[in-house]
Amino acid sequence: MSETTINNLFGKPLSVINVGLSSMAQSVEAQGTPVIDVDWRPPAESVPRLRVTRSGVDIEAANDETCRRIKQGRPVLVSMGIARDVIPGMHERMILHAGPPVSWERMCGPTRGAVMGALIYEGLAKDEADAAKLAASSAIEYSPCHHHHAVGPMAGVVSPSMPVFIIENKAFGNRAFCTQNEGLGKVLRYGGMGPEVYARLKWMETTLYPALDRALQSLPDGIDLRSMIAQALHMGDECHNRNRAATSLFLRAIGPALARTSRDNEVLAQVIEFIDRNDHFFLNLSMPAGKAMLEPAEGIPGSTIVTVMARNGTDFGIRLSSMPERWFTAPAGKVQGLYFPQFTEADANPDIGDSTVTETSGYGGMAMAAAPAITKFVGGTPQLALKTTLEMYEITHDEHEQFTIPALNFRGTPCGIDVRKVMETGILPQINTGIAHKQPGIGMVGAGILRAPARCFEDAFEVLKNQ
Amino acid sequence: MSETTINNLFGKPLSVINVGLSSMAQSVEAQGTPVIDVDWRPPAESVPRLRVTRSGVDIEAANDETCRRIKQGRPVLVSMGIARDVIPGMHERMILHAGPPVSWERMCGPTRGAVMGALIYEGLAKDEADAAKLAASSAIEYSPCHHHHAVGPMAGVVSPSMPVFIIENKAFGNRAFCTQNEGLGKVLRYGGMGPEVYARLKWMETTLYPALDRALQSLPDGIDLRSMIAQALHMGDECHNRNRAATSLFLRAIGPALARTSRDNEVLAQVIEFIDRNDHFFLNLSMPAGKAMLEPAEGIPGSTIVTVMARNGTDFGIRLSSMPERWFTAPAGKVQGLYFPQFTEADANPDIGDSTVTETSGYGGMAMAAAPAITKFVGGTPQLALKTTLEMYEITHDEHEQFTIPALNFRGTPCGIDVRKVMETGILPQINTGIAHKQPGIGMVGAGILRAPARCFEDAFEVLKNQ
Repeated sequence: MSETTINNLFGKPLSVINVGLSSMAQSVEAQGTPVIDVDWRPPAESVPRLRVTRSGVDIEAANDETCRRIKQGRPVLVSMGIARDVIPGMHERMILHAGPPVSWERMCGPTRGAVMGALIYEGLAKDEADAAKLAASSAIEYSPCHHHHAVGPMAGVVSPSMPVFIIENKAFGNRAFCTQNEGLGKVLRYGGMGPEVYARLKWMETTLYPALDRALQSLPDGIDLRSMIAQALHMGDECHNRNRAATSLFLRAIGPALARTSRDNEVLAQVIEFIDRNDHFFLNLSMPAGKAMLEPAEGIPGSTIVTVMARNGTDFGIRLSSMPERWFTAPAGKVQGLYFPQFTEADANPDIGDSTVTETSGYGGMAMAAAPAITKFVGGTPQLALKTTLEMYEITHDEHEQFTIPALNFRGTPCGIDVRKVMETGILPQINTGIAHKQPGIGMVGAGILRAPARCFEDAFEVLKNQ
Repeated sequence: MSETTINNLFGKPLSVINVGLSSMAQSVEAQGTPVIDVDWRPPAESVPRLRVTRSGVDIEAANDETCRRIKQGRPVLVSMGIARDVIPGMHERMILHAGPPVSWERMCGPTRGAVMGALIYEGLAKDEADAAKLAASSAIEYSPCHHHHAVGPMAGVVSPSMPVFIIENKAFGNRAFCTQNEGLGKVLRYGGMGPEVYARLKWMETTLYPALDRALQSLPDGIDLRSMIAQALHMGDECHNRNRAATSLFLRAIGPALARTSRDNEVLAQVIEFIDRNDHFFLNLSMPAGKAMLEPAEGIPGSTIVTVMARNGTDFGIRLSSMPERWFTAPAGKVQGLYFPQFTEADANPDIGDSTVTETSGYGGMAMAAAPAITKFVGGTPQLALKTTLEMYEITHDEHEQFTIPALNFRGTPCGIDVRKVMETGILPQINTGIAHKQPGIGMVGAGILRAPARCFEDAFEVLKNQ
């Protein structure tokens, strides 16, 4: 397949989807037709359906159980804390990062920037040169967020002093962690460094966190994030790169408690303003909500369902329910995106961040059809958004009845990526993402879409075949 | 046409639309196919297009100007006030109501209930019997909201002590007025009476209003409602019967000012809770926003565009840009709806309220395609919602570029109902609405959809032909 024209409801051609040959995309684009590149590859020829593992486990039943656990999860924001105090395994000289394990030497620019910035924010380094030296030394231990029940957007750096949200999966009792979202632009998670970045982080630690924490302490039932994600999917969010509705619902839910526990109404006003001015605030709640739902689904023998998809800006890695400790990695992909005016594709770092936990959980790119307006941020057309979700049903094991898509007549979102189906169809999981500048210190340059790299799934499939 | 099957994007039949014969709808429904009744009538045979009035005015140009003014409108919430002080023509013994003029004798149950309740709330009557006596006497003057630059949902009753929002159309300088929304259930605007109704109204007058008013006074630029409606249309609202997103955005916008001007944080918490618990709070802002946009478009000679559509529960009335003082009325229609568990169609009052100002302005039922999830509240399917908006383009003169629908690739909403096109196509304007109990004192019983009555348009067209 080299070119496809899809028709809308009324028989008119909508746009050209170009798969495989980007030179063709360029020539079509030159003619003024909207065009979207999709990282498509032909399916491996006649991949046989794996049905039973060598040890005799029924894979379909294992996958049923995996998805049952994901769907049963009920993530609730219960409290907050400081990373060093609450994240298991965290210590004073540890820095957590997004994606699979990576050494300082192999870290991409934005992750390096975020690490250096975090060391300055922590007071462990006095300037960038000092931070770079410390970061490269053995004094700092690096570890993936995912090894600590945590997730982090973009660089995903968590340092000991950072406040984190604590999400409890009420169905299983496990907990997940994530920092507070800083907003867009020159921010730490996009590799941004500078006094304004550290000042914002300090304000989030000393003002925002205490206000939110006091409010949460006054809410014995916490805040039900599953219900909030479900509502937001009916309000044009997919809860990865569009969180405007969910951020609004969060502010509605915590507003009365913020008011009742306020000690200073100017601070209260600033806290509301900070959240109001950042439509991505809820991302750092939708992500750990997904992590909290996925962890109980890990460790099911024979399961071919993906329970982790994460990128560190150098490598893309997946882990499966049946092999929850093992990473299958491949080079991180190139994002096809929309750029802020002063930046171009040449500035872009490869795909980065733990935010693919949303796709892994059954929203984000899986629920693109719920969020037609997201195309103004990440590119593409509303029709492509619809088509993307429909395509994702081809590679998922289940549909999430808690998360439904009105435009698809309230059909449940595609949930539980099945490595077997990815191999059989050649369809790779859809990802929405922000784009970081490839140099440390600069920050966000745009947003876009891409597919997960095939090699992770190929390698995992090879192991599954011999399981 | 008696039956139509529409196909979705993928060639599968979605549902059956039944027009005209409800017995056929019943038989199809019995077979388990989703079915929707549409109040359809065949177009009048070969209605000639009116192009020039007898006095030589080019109607197309007049309609262009009418729609230009509607679309140019920029409604901003600038302040609040008490009805007796701020609504032109209001006095101590005046009660405003929704729809065209109606006497006490011809008032429907819910409007009577709301009038009696308002008299008790005002302290002008001590109980319902007393209120009924006073209401029927010449001591009370009734007047339509629309005669006072105001609009009111459902019964639309405005009494002298009620606080109102003041919306200014910044492009033209005119102002529009609307009360605060009480919430759903047993509330005055649905004809609800009782101590809890009056207590709520009193709290809204003495606590909610001062808090919102102080906050607004601290915002010199006010709150831009056009921008808020535009955003909400990208978030699953149509801003008539679904205002969840817009209510959320309003709370985000006013939140910091509420905090800065708060005198008592328990009150602040209650104010936030009141708004949070009422997804329809924004309706009483989306309605006067529409009124503020429509009034500058009144009085254009030769225009066949509808600038008022309103119902008092007895009559449905429209007014045209070219004849802004003249009502064309017909009996109010029967709503096809979803009912709260204890109620049925037998309890329903006919169509009521000024909220059709939203359809007149280019959102509400016109923008159903933006709000697929509304079908859980008013009935129908997401596919019918899409189809409804497409149908409305057939009877509107223009598309509102400020209000766009992501699912239709950001096409502007159908704007400016043209009486000529209604007559030529036989397509009547779509209306979403709440349903009031037909007896005074009870309140809301459900929500649903219907079409405007043909006779208003037929009568207006006859006059237009001789203009």
